[in-house]
Amino acid sequence: MNGISMIQLAKELGLSVSTVSKALGDSHEISASTKKRVLELAKKYKYKPNPFASNLRKKKGKQIAVIIPDIVNNFFALAVDGIESVTMSKHYDTFIYLTHENLEREKAVLEHLESGLISGLIISVCTGREGYAHFQEFYETTRLPIVFFDRVPDLLQFPKVIANNYESSFDATARLIKAGSKRPALITTTEPMFTSMERRRGYQDALEKHGIVFTDEMIIHCTDDMALNYSILRKIFSQKKRPDGIFASIEKYAITSYEVCKDLKLSIPKDVKVIGMTNLRTAALLNPSLSTLSQPAFDMGKEAAGLLIKMIEKKSYAAANDIIVLPNELTIRDSI
Amino acid sequence: MNGISMIQLAKELGLSVSTVSKALGDSHEISASTKKRVLELAKKYKYKPNPFASNLRKKKGKQIAVIIPDIVNNFFALAVDGIESVTMSKHYDTFIYLTHENLEREKAVLEHLESGLISGLIISVCTGREGYAHFQEFYETTRLPIVFFDRVPDLLQFPKVIANNYESSFDATARLIKAGSKRPALITTTEPMFTSMERRRGYQDALEKHGIVFTDEMIIHCTDDMALNYSILRKIFSQKKRPDGIFASIEKYAITSYEVCKDLKLSIPKDVKVIGMTNLRTAALLNPSLSTLSQPAFDMGKEAAGLLIKMIEKKSYAAANDIIVLPNELTIRDSI
Repeated sequence: MNGISMIQLAKELGLSVSTVSKALGDSHEISASTKKRVLELAKKYKYKPNPFASNLRKKKGKQIAVIIPDIVNNFFALAVDGIESVTMSKHYDTFIYLTHENLEREKAVLEHLESGLISGLIISVCTGREGYAHFQEFYETTRLPIVFFDRVPDLLQFPKVIANNYESSFDATARLIKAGSKRPALITTTEPMFTSMERRRGYQDALEKHGIVFTDEMIIHCTDDMALNYSILRKIFSQKKRPDGIFASIEKYAITSYEVCKDLKLSIPKDVKVIGMTNLRTAALLNPSLSTLSQPAFDMGKEAAGLLIKMIEKKSYAAANDIIVLPNELTIRDSI
Repeated sequence: MNGISMIQLAKELGLSVSTVSKALGDSHEISASTKKRVLELAKKYKYKPNPFASNLRKKKGKQIAVIIPDIVNNFFALAVDGIESVTMSKHYDTFIYLTHENLEREKAVLEHLESGLISGLIISVCTGREGYAHFQEFYETTRLPIVFFDRVPDLLQFPKVIANNYESSFDATARLIKAGSKRPALITTTEPMFTSMERRRGYQDALEKHGIVFTDEMIIHCTDDMALNYSILRKIFSQKKRPDGIFASIEKYAITSYEVCKDLKLSIPKDVKVIGMTNLRTAALLNPSLSTLSQPAFDMGKEAAGLLIKMIEKKSYAAANDIIVLPNELTIRDSI
């Protein structure tokens, strides 16, 4: 280590770490002579408190959990980066759990966390919904603060950090139409959830505003399985009456759309215009460069963690109805 | 929840969770009549034990930490995915810490973890090395199992999971040369570490084997800061005597190389041939498609977690000298 740790001080003094910690904190439990010994050695070795020191002393309550569907997705990776930037600076430890869109796994993690491992929870729910009773139950059992982000259930009493999905989906769809798409498809998840419903609502309202009649088959439902998605999309785009536009509401759907168009020799944007909801760093480097609707992923993670820690430390649920809405960013490139 | 939890059973029976748990486990501490009551209610509600149940009972020792430089990097995201696939199935909880290539942060996290939060550690070290004494010290203080992966220090007594960096870098460099590059550059990290030294050794040996005289300026040192990397690379590739090939040994360096070539209107592969060490899902969709040397990231994470849990559960350090070497995969596309 750079400098000496409290454990090393304790070793050299023949004292417990807890005694050293209390002595350094000038606790009344420690005798003046012991305090003197500890402080002298600390000074000799230029002891500097670890930024986590307060955590060491009151370890309980400094752990939070993050439950997300997927980490191999730039949105969630950036969101975790944002969460960690806050938990690190506030000296919290962060557990991570991946549900892989598996509802049973999400439930098992929640039930596991009822055991008291954590003092708060940040979650982006998986698809495959059958209601949100398990969150309600987790909360009723534990009374722990929960912040939802991005994929949020429509439960009023929990704080949420979301993007302006309705407005930005409306805008993205309108841009596809203005670029010439007469039949833009929305690629979305298999199961309804609040976030995807908002995106769908924005998409459908944009169609209506531009006089395009919506039919059910314009919604393409994809899954967590990229191979399955490939065959779903390949089949649809092999049809004669295929969509001439794509609004891919999840990053991996945009990537698979490109793969399918490439393999079917459909030209983007001539045959199919594409806008993808993604934080891909390589969007501008794709062939052709991908028009993106990108979410403020890092900031969403940061806001969610900030809100959660405020709730934990104030032991208050004043924030319980907070909804923080951050703007998505539409960047038009060569794919439309 | 799907079904009922142990906590709900306890509530309804007016018993403690611990009593219910012991009753379900047929403990001799619990009376026959209480066991009967518990089992009857469990049956009535079709109670199924949570996969984490054993964890709930012996919570201590079921937490591990993962320390990595960066999560917004497909390699590390995939590695965490691999780690989590094992920790989830073995009912371990996973803490995540990001160092962002900051050595002080790495040291602070390690010192923090000396407090006994975890029972084992998986780490990929940050750049900016000044020796590895803090790992040695962490181990001597805690005697906890540590597994290094990908970015490993050259410390014999710790198990490691790495890729065949020397051989695969040799092959990648040879392919650049065979494709016509007479002056291929290696883009690597600012500071030496075992992993990057192996890659460099493979690169230099390939040059030598193909009769290309190595000079120091053929090594381009980049950082964790993409904006800074952009200006470093832009300056070098604006020179008259610029490299005509790039072996980018980290994903973000490959992406920035593409950005710089695009902005300087250097044609890939005509002016500059590029191979990038990356697990980018979009590599094949870039303009032009990127030739990649990809690491078995998911499997490296999986192996690291498997090894760590073996060490934790056997309480043995027989595995301490294990080095697991997995092969990188070279995929040639249009960028060379």
